[in-house]
Amino acid sequence: MLPSSPHVRSVYENESGVLAHAKPGMLLIDSSTIDPLTAREVAFDARAKGVAMVDAPVSGGTAGAEAGTLTFMVGGEARDFEAARAILGAMGKNIVHCGGSGNGQVAKICNNMMLAIEMIATSEGMTLAAKLGMDPKVFAGIVNTSSGRCWSSDTYNPYPGVLENAPASRGYAGGFGADLMLKDLTLVTEAAKQAKVPVLLGAIAQQVYQKHSADGHGGKDFSSVILQYLKT
Amino acid sequence: MLPSSPHVRSVYENESGVLAHAKPGMLLIDSSTIDPLTAREVAFDARAKGVAMVDAPVSGGTAGAEAGTLTFMVGGEARDFEAARAILGAMGKNIVHCGGSGNGQVAKICNNMMLAIEMIATSEGMTLAAKLGMDPKVFAGIVNTSSGRCWSSDTYNPYPGVLENAPASRGYAGGFGADLMLKDLTLVTEAAKQAKVPVLLGAIAQQVYQKHSADGHGGKDFSSVILQYLKT
Amino acid sequence: MLPSSPHVRSVYENESGVLAHAKPGMLLIDSSTIDPLTAREVAFDARAKGVAMVDAPVSGGTAGAEAGTLTFMVGGEARDFEAARAILGAMGKNIVHCGGSGNGQVAKICNNMMLAIEMIATSEGMTLAAKLGMDPKVFAGIVNTSSGRCWSSDTYNPYPGVLENAPASRGYAGGFGADLMLKDLTLVTEAAKQAKVPVLLGAIAQQVYQKHSADGHGGKDFSSVILQYLKT
Amino acid sequence: MLPSSPHVRSVYENESGVLAHAKPGMLLIDSSTIDPLTAREVAFDARAKGVAMVDAPVSGGTAGAEAGTLTFMVGGEARDFEAARAILGAMGKNIVHCGGSGNGQVAKICNNMMLAIEMIATSEGMTLAAKLGMDPKVFAGIVNTSSGRCWSSDTYNPYPGVLENAPASRGYAGGFGADLMLKDLTLVTEAAKQAKVPVLLGAIAQQVYQKHSADGHGGKDFSSVILQYLKT
Repeated sequence: MLPSSPHVRSVYENESGVLAHAKPGMLLIDSSTIDPLTAREVAFDARAKGVAMVDAPVSGGTAGAEAGTLTFMVGGEARDFEAARAILGAMGKNIVHCGGSGNGQVAKICNNMMLAIEMIATSEGMTLAAKLGMDPKVFAGIVNTSSGRCWSSDTYNPYPGVLENAPASRGYAGGFGADLMLKDLTLVTEAAKQAKVPVLLGAIAQQVYQKHSADGHGGKDFSSVILQYLKT
Repeated sequence: MLPSSPHVRSVYENESGVLAHAKPGMLLIDSSTIDPLTAREVAFDARAKGVAMVDAPVSGGTAGAEAGTLTFMVGGEARDFEAARAILGAMGKNIVHCGGSGNGQVAKICNNMMLAIEMIATSEGMTLAAKLGMDPKVFAGIVNTSSGRCWSSDTYNPYPGVLENAPASRGYAGGFGADLMLKDLTLVTEAAKQAKVPVLLGAIAQQVYQKHSADGHGGKDFSSVILQYLKT
Repeated sequence: MLPSSPHVRSVYENESGVLAHAKPGMLLIDSSTIDPLTAREVAFDARAKGVAMVDAPVSGGTAGAEAGTLTFMVGGEARDFEAARAILGAMGKNIVHCGGSGNGQVAKICNNMMLAIEMIATSEGMTLAAKLGMDPKVFAGIVNTSSGRCWSSDTYNPYPGVLENAPASRGYAGGFGADLMLKDLTLVTEAAKQAKVPVLLGAIAQQVYQKHSADGHGGKDFSSVILQYLKT
Repeated sequence: MLPSSPHVRSVYENESGVLAHAKPGMLLIDSSTIDPLTAREVAFDARAKGVAMVDAPVSGGTAGAEAGTLTFMVGGEARDFEAARAILGAMGKNIVHCGGSGNGQVAKICNNMMLAIEMIATSEGMTLAAKLGMDPKVFAGIVNTSSGRCWSSDTYNPYPGVLENAPASRGYAGGFGADLMLKDLTLVTEAAKQAKVPVLLGAIAQQVYQKHSADGHGGKDFSSVILQYLKT
């Protein structure tokens, strides 16, 4: 699990890298979150040497890792996915085959784009409802049984005091860092540019997290983005 | 259930309106979706005549109405809520007390702002994932067991063919009209201006639905907003 | 020159208001900035009493007022415009006939929407160029002889120290208050909703100024919006 | 003048590239619009071989090129700038020294970000004013003597019929292509991410041009972005 595309290229494809030493028949599992194009190219190079490779980025946060309930989004051939599943099952609950190489990345970054937008949507909705006179817990309860519900509202609510176990109730410590979310938003808006798909809310979410990071909150859990609204 | 604030004012407060004829001890239930301020003022005027009044806007769409599973968001005094609950229970499954007068409106419009943003988020995520090579059903399945899940992705997915019973699979006919969503977004961004709360994504969602309506799609289900992305 | 539509309605149309006392043949000049619809309705009521009325909102700020170089944007019939011009010429340099009643307001709020967007564009461009290593004065000089030039860059630059006489070089004191700009942006986005015209950047500019005001900068000159970027 | 950073790297730094054959004392002038970082690195490599190099991207469009009134934004050492000026003066009217290597690029892409935002601002303002009942030429005349004026309104107005010589009056043929603007917006939003500077309106302008291109208008002049508003 490496931090970015250049690291993945270097670790696998350098003169003394993984591919230089891998033996035909081996299975490589890469859990980095990187751009789908790089993932596809490295897997192609691996296959050219008779080495199987799947991209298997992960979702679920540190809590999911500790509990062994992570989601792995796997891109690669069906039989390689089956081989990887046996191993990944030790760490995750949902091991999903997303299709060919690179599709694990597509699933991960598109999911996280939705997540970031929904987290900001929840931040705006909670803040506005509270300012208009509602009890935040009551409002969250209504949303969570209605059409506005989402993981960010019912499982990871950013408003302090609504969910006892959410980062919002411990000063936004731990969890999934805002700078990591910013990284994924940067990846997904890049991929959208290459695919010529407009992602208006995705691009704005990227900007909001960029401002949040520039304001010094990059190390906090990503639900702290509500501070962009609550502090005012 | 009236279309807008001026209609509510007129029906209740005209010379020959409801309040002119209501008798002390009566209970008035208004299920219009209007701005919280007007709801509070009309309820105040009712109470001044010894008449109880609750605002009780509704969520769940036409399907929920037919199945008797609507959510009613009720603003008003506790005992008036109890009295209203007995009646509203015939049409709805979730009858929620949101606090004092007007809070039913707050819950409704803030929930729907979140809903609109999440529907656009789902539209962007589904479209991008499909263009980047994923099967839309597979992507939806992953999101719906992961952190990007929301009602718009798991119950009302806007991508054609993903959910058999969603409006997307019948040409966006029926359901909750895009122009009704636009009306709610206009109400909520107005309320946010009055409360001086920034709602960046809410304001953009209002613009996206305004363009969608101007493009001639106002009569379709609100999930048709994905056509702003799919058609390109 | 009154602060908002309800004030205009009240001052002109109350029982003891201006229209109740105006004599046929009189000319009324209203320099409030309000929504075009209200301006049209009050002018209609005036004409119904044989009283001429023009809407004549103003642009140019306090500096323009002191120098007698204001721009008046006048809506009303041609001969009423001619009559008003003689008077307004004492305070302004550009007295422009914008067409029928209410068009003075249209010109004013649409101009100010462009102005707000351009001020934010200049704030983003200046901040980014400086962070990327350019001297802000040199960058401003280039923009101002190139295609990015605008009034906000060449006459009212928001970056401290670029223009000696701009509010940016005196702590954003004086000038045109951010809260007044917020008021105009609220008017123009409302008018756009009624006209069903999408104004995406206009709606976002409204949000940026709403956050700027909520952050406590409403009393500063509107060019202080650059603090949303510089402070980070 | 090459289309993108990889082309520049390849032409200058390949085994048989420009730097391999350049002799000490030569002056290299590169007028490509690329990211500032690449420009700085190639200039550094040139200097390491005793070869002077300036980045000199250009602004002013095809009309400026034909008339010899282009603006060249030059990054590099002062004496290299002086040497380049003698040559560039044959094609341009404004030859500006922007500071060290790469600053020509910074000036170009930050100017064009402002330009794109202002063009969309003008599109929104013109469309709204027209829909609210004003003559577009009259509105443009007012803006152009007021605080909303910008190059996009007074020299290159996107509304058909306002300026006889603008692309808007010949079906948006010729001029500066929308896809070229999209390229510059992609460069500048990338540079902003690296510099951690939020550019909210810049990111949205990038999205609007991305949708415009996806809608099939990439080959038209960039002022055709008004079709995103007028067609509705």
